[in-house]
Amino acid sequence: MTVYNAPLNEMEFLIKDVFDLDTITALPGYEEATEDMVDAILDEAGKLGRDIIAPLARTSDEQGATWKDNEVTTSPGFKEAYAQFIEGGWNGIGFDPEYGGMGLPFILSNAVSEIWNSSSVAFGLCPMLTGGAIEAIHHHASDEQKATYLEKMISGEWTGTMNLTEPSAGSDLAAVSAKAVPQEDGSYKISGQKIFITFGEHDMTDNIIHLVLARTPDAPAGSRGISLFIVPKFLVNEDGSLGERNPAYCISIEHKLGIHGSPTATMSFEEATGYLVKEENKGLACMFTMMNNARLNVGNEGFAAAERAYQCAREYAMERVQSPLLGSKDKTSVTIDKHPDVRRMLLTMKSKTEAARAISYFTARQQDIQAKSDDEAARTNADALIQLLTPIVKAYSTDIGIEVADDGIQVHGGMGFIEESGAPQWLRDVRITAIYEGTNGIQANDLIGRKVAMNGGAYLDVLMPLIKEDVAAAKAKGGVFAEMADALDVAITNTEKATQWLIESFKDDPKQAATGSVHYLRLMGNLCGGWLLTKSAIIAQAKLDAGQGDPNFMKAKINTARFFGEQILPVSSALKSMFIKGHGAVLDCEDEWL
Amino acid sequence: MTVYNAPLNEMEFLIKDVFDLDTITALPGYEEATEDMVDAILDEAGKLGRDIIAPLARTSDEQGATWKDNEVTTSPGFKEAYAQFIEGGWNGIGFDPEYGGMGLPFILSNAVSEIWNSSSVAFGLCPMLTGGAIEAIHHHASDEQKATYLEKMISGEWTGTMNLTEPSAGSDLAAVSAKAVPQEDGSYKISGQKIFITFGEHDMTDNIIHLVLARTPDAPAGSRGISLFIVPKFLVNEDGSLGERNPAYCISIEHKLGIHGSPTATMSFEEATGYLVKEENKGLACMFTMMNNARLNVGNEGFAAAERAYQCAREYAMERVQSPLLGSKDKTSVTIDKHPDVRRMLLTMKSKTEAARAISYFTARQQDIQAKSDDEAARTNADALIQLLTPIVKAYSTDIGIEVADDGIQVHGGMGFIEESGAPQWLRDVRITAIYEGTNGIQANDLIGRKVAMNGGAYLDVLMPLIKEDVAAAKAKGGVFAEMADALDVAITNTEKATQWLIESFKDDPKQAATGSVHYLRLMGNLCGGWLLTKSAIIAQAKLDAGQGDPNFMKAKINTARFFGEQILPVSSALKSMFIKGHGAVLDCEDEWL
Repeated sequence: MTVYNAPLNEMEFLIKDVFDLDTITALPGYEEATEDMVDAILDEAGKLGRDIIAPLARTSDEQGATWKDNEVTTSPGFKEAYAQFIEGGWNGIGFDPEYGGMGLPFILSNAVSEIWNSSSVAFGLCPMLTGGAIEAIHHHASDEQKATYLEKMISGEWTGTMNLTEPSAGSDLAAVSAKAVPQEDGSYKISGQKIFITFGEHDMTDNIIHLVLARTPDAPAGSRGISLFIVPKFLVNEDGSLGERNPAYCISIEHKLGIHGSPTATMSFEEATGYLVKEENKGLACMFTMMNNARLNVGNEGFAAAERAYQCAREYAMERVQSPLLGSKDKTSVTIDKHPDVRRMLLTMKSKTEAARAISYFTARQQDIQAKSDDEAARTNADALIQLLTPIVKAYSTDIGIEVADDGIQVHGGMGFIEESGAPQWLRDVRITAIYEGTNGIQANDLIGRKVAMNGGAYLDVLMPLIKEDVAAAKAKGGVFAEMADALDVAITNTEKATQWLIESFKDDPKQAATGSVHYLRLMGNLCGGWLLTKSAIIAQAKLDAGQGDPNFMKAKINTARFFGEQILPVSSALKSMFIKGHGAVLDCEDEWL
Repeated sequence: MTVYNAPLNEMEFLIKDVFDLDTITALPGYEEATEDMVDAILDEAGKLGRDIIAPLARTSDEQGATWKDNEVTTSPGFKEAYAQFIEGGWNGIGFDPEYGGMGLPFILSNAVSEIWNSSSVAFGLCPMLTGGAIEAIHHHASDEQKATYLEKMISGEWTGTMNLTEPSAGSDLAAVSAKAVPQEDGSYKISGQKIFITFGEHDMTDNIIHLVLARTPDAPAGSRGISLFIVPKFLVNEDGSLGERNPAYCISIEHKLGIHGSPTATMSFEEATGYLVKEENKGLACMFTMMNNARLNVGNEGFAAAERAYQCAREYAMERVQSPLLGSKDKTSVTIDKHPDVRRMLLTMKSKTEAARAISYFTARQQDIQAKSDDEAARTNADALIQLLTPIVKAYSTDIGIEVADDGIQVHGGMGFIEESGAPQWLRDVRITAIYEGTNGIQANDLIGRKVAMNGGAYLDVLMPLIKEDVAAAKAKGGVFAEMADALDVAITNTEKATQWLIESFKDDPKQAATGSVHYLRLMGNLCGGWLLTKSAIIAQAKLDAGQGDPNFMKAKINTARFFGEQILPVSSALKSMFIKGHGAVLDCEDEWL
């Protein structure tokens, strides 16, 4: 099992050079996010990840969280590592300074999250969920509620959860049935069962702040009748000290394929005291604010796990000696990374990981512009890009996470099937990311419906000119850059044709497009990934020409982009065809034919 | 977790209708393999699989084989199930009647193996490995050795293993270092360590017959110096009774991603008595005979696991209610199989599984012709097809097994990550099949090198006319059949172009083709799968027209083939392009760029 080293050069290159940190630092409130600050933060986070959290990945896989009598004991070392994590102030780096956060831009805190996720997806989930709860409270709760909870959640002294899913209400939150009965003091009694609650119970902090979706007695049916409640594990006294135990119990945890270190709780709310957020029946809207952010965070888990799997496979391939090179006169055995098929796998892993990371960082940058820019047009454009790219970051990154982790197993050969090698765990851990926070099929349907067809492609009108500008620049450079541009041109044409058909067909029969929506998402993901790798390659060449940076890193960026054009982008035409013409047998299929 | 039901209608349709059982029954020695016999055998195997073996899949996953003091205790129920398995005579159905087998054609015994593999991949491995050892002894051992071992191995009273791999000799068997020192009595003393030995030790039988690759003291270096030895766990006395314990010990078993019920042993041979098979330094050739067969058997595991994953996902999707249909006025929630994206996933799973199965059965049929036909030209053609299709059956089927099992997880949504659902296990179990018995990358290199480039495409000249004949027939039928034919035509053209480039480029620089050899294998696999599904659809239509068989089954065959043309075959052009033009960045890549 390999050591994890955060890819600091890649992170810094993206943040500073590709996505132009200066424009972020120029935004009001982000003045402190200088190059030095970025370097220092990433460097320190990298050390904490490598030395403290990354070793927990394997140990917590072997000894996962355990449950007894409604209490959960986390994996050995989690409690201590979490204490060190919040001691260092890491939980709050992206949050409001008014409540003790550092208020750093999302493009930076997103990179830091990547480090936690690469170190241990299971560990990273706790601050991720707390972050979601912080967002919900920050955006929607009353000042009093903020005063009560935010500071301790931002410091990490308390953690947060999201209680949405019920046995019959998974993808379809309209079916939520948990009850909330109003009390005379303005609070509510919450009753019902919630499942799949990440870190719903644990022993790392004194209190846990549950955000719970439930229905009041007179609520309308469906999603319009859902309200959001704050339900602390321990009630909070007026002086901020902890009061009585709220009857919100973890009655079991799941036995899962992966992320064994992350307790997945079944929560039983037994007339637990809850406090309404905003007003009744506005719960889903509150949750949606938070969910968009959560989707970006889950996408982050996808490429973060991919990065770890890649590092693991690369190290193994560079050490494992087996067979001489094909076609070589020298019959000495070589390390397997020299065999073309293995090298292709490694570059597939690397290029997909970097593509997904680049899309994520690009979207994070838009978040920062949307949040802080004083230019309204810039904010509007940023919002369009966030809307469009959120389902892509979530689904494309996590699909890629699974594919890369699977390739990582294959690179290991027989050792890839042995748990001690570490290789299988990245696949087991990352597999959930394509499912939770809205399955990737749901992301694809969100993309084709709300994000493209329903606005006539307006968001794409913001994105495509950006892509075309860089493609033109690549074409002008000639050589391998022109080859990348050619591959991107084909992808652009296919995306435009697919989009045109989507907009035309969706109104009359959305089922046709929904059949192959994942193909459309993949087409877009590949296009965006290929674009940003090519953009990165152009910048890397400029830095090479200027004698800046590590030459091998810059050459690698160019080679990786070239690889993506040669080995990943060629599926564009097939994806378009499967999307536009692939619904016949699906929609005609009778139940008896399955 | 679902019950497993062998797809008897599909198996019988393939064996009788698509692959024309009559021509097999007409071969000398296979006269007894009538339609009634096929039905009876499959029916009984289906019951044993469903009732006795399939329930062991989950239980043996939860409580895998355990090791203590060089002994292995198999999972609860394995010993009893194995006793019932051999009691029913199932171990010997495909083997030589002279040694107690039933001598049934491979197309039938292969279908029966599918049932064991779908029931429990871990359980199925034991007879699979025994079968490999039987083949090796049957083809290469002396009459005396055959007399000593074959009958008890064919009955299943003793099991067999293959001891090839060592820590430094995995894919590269030339690096085998185990020693064999000749003794005065003609036997050898075998010393060394072997790893990854499937069912290398267990408690289900009194004896285990190890086949071991080792080097004699004066053996030449490399693969020319490897000899094959029979090393029984207990020596066999002249009267057939068991003698002393041979020092061939299982010193540990592996902790694996899947197939927990199958003990994967590290074997220590400590001057164990071994008996040479054939002559010194001919070991690799002996192993190769067996390996070709083993590769077909591993391919069988791929689609067998896929079948199980599909049944599991289909059942879940048809029961799980979530959300109303997209675009429907009726806002009642429906079972998720009705949602287009889920139905697409189910049909992807089904069509890939059936494609891989059809290629396997077709190849099994060629084995029967090659083994028994008195027409030399027919035998030669059959051999060409076997040579060409063996790496495809192995790699394509197992890749598909992984993809289908992964889709099965996704269909289950959140439950797909929970082990109790059964869904994750099929992925964990099948993942090894792309690795052992030669990784799929090695299969792809075998295909492009030995099977295509080195003979100038001679084997393809046997296959392609068969495909084109059926494509022409589909085209003539019009409608959806013509659409399938069109998709196949594109795949044919791309295969031919890819093959032409392969043959031209391989001589001067085989590394170019080796970079994307997996793409060539996929292209060929999709073509063969699409061809046989289309052929099946044509036959299904004829049976529909004639009022024969279950109409829904026949309509399903047509719909599934149509789906394959719409959703799987469109990648042909991309695969060709990635194969022919995809090597630049890989072969130019410096180590420092990884």
